[in-house]
Amino acid sequence: MKLPAKTVERLSQYRRILHSYKHLEESYIFSHDLAKLLKINPVQVRRDFMLIGFSGSSRNGYRVNDLMDYIDATLTIPKGQKATIIGMGELGRALLKHISSNPVCPVMIPATFDIDPKKTNKKYLDVSCYDLTRAPELLTKYNIQIAIIAIVTNDVQEIVDSLLISGIKSIINFSAGPFRVPDNIYLKDFDIRTTLEEISYFISQE
Amino acid sequence: MKLPAKTVERLSQYRRILHSYKHLEESYIFSHDLAKLLKINPVQVRRDFMLIGFSGSSRNGYRVNDLMDYIDATLTIPKGQKATIIGMGELGRALLKHISSNPVCPVMIPATFDIDPKKTNKKYLDVSCYDLTRAPELLTKYNIQIAIIAIVTNDVQEIVDSLLISGIKSIINFSAGPFRVPDNIYLKDFDIRTTLEEISYFISQE
Repeated sequence: MKLPAKTVERLSQYRRILHSYKHLEESYIFSHDLAKLLKINPVQVRRDFMLIGFSGSSRNGYRVNDLMDYIDATLTIPKGQKATIIGMGELGRALLKHISSNPVCPVMIPATFDIDPKKTNKKYLDVSCYDLTRAPELLTKYNIQIAIIAIVTNDVQEIVDSLLISGIKSIINFSAGPFRVPDNIYLKDFDIRTTLEEISYFISQE
Repeated sequence: MKLPAKTVERLSQYRRILHSYKHLEESYIFSHDLAKLLKINPVQVRRDFMLIGFSGSSRNGYRVNDLMDYIDATLTIPKGQKATIIGMGELGRALLKHISSNPVCPVMIPATFDIDPKKTNKKYLDVSCYDLTRAPELLTKYNIQIAIIAIVTNDVQEIVDSLLISGIKSIINFSAGPFRVPDNIYLKDFDIRTTLEEISYFISQE
């Protein structure tokens, strides 16, 4: 059964929270505690756990270790997905470090790309940075399906198109875009500038 | 009139797109072109423009410069909001550069914070980095209302609490969290690890 996107997002968030409890020998957590931390309804929490086949005792709460095992079994990807970072400027390098420093992150980064000869043919945290022209060949070779776009330019449509041809199925975008992707591509927009504009508007209207 | 959050988000996105056309002397754009770029319905585009009082000719399209003026008048914040970055490691510095390099970004960053003495009492791109203990004093002094959390630790609740007391009204979070904020605080979660877990799940289910 394929879980709804929102459920997967929440399961991933529950796991982050539970991680901080797991060093305790015997610990229990209530659905309303998890709900409070994520600002959602406890009914939603219980429904999510039912969806993955986990039923705790609502009197004593859920046993943290059991719950984590269930979430792990649901979310863990057998061989690990592979991702790449396009653009190894400051943002790209920071993201590589941020991702690599996570012990439970399910994603491996076997290669990164840039167009600047000063950045290519080097390694960052043991990951090679190649010239972007080699992306089609290497994305296929390493079976990379996730691309993180960490370039500043607005003009990314051409790059995105070539990534999709090379088998990329999902994009996390930090660029100012905009660009088009087909409907079957999972696109997550992390454009911080647009976000700042939105926030500024709301604060100024208060 | 306070516009809906989603409308503000789209207006900000339209502006990004229009920006690439504005160097043309006389240029027009159709609602269906904008809609296609953002993968939304053209009716939505026309409704958004009606909301800000802009009516183009649906026969010839919208005049780009006029449309940009309207969006600017709606979204531009008179004196500019102020933001800070908490954590000036690689990610914090990359975000500062990313934000500063945007000519139309409505946000100024007068100060940043860290707890590491190797990072504090220095300037990055002409912006001073102070010890986090000085945040309450300086956030108030500079009237900073937006905080970008760029630290790696999970344990941010205490930091977030002290920011809120100092007048922060909105948070963009890059940390692994989780933390609680009151309902009137505008929180945008940019947690890349959770996003990667979600994406991995969906790709593995295909």
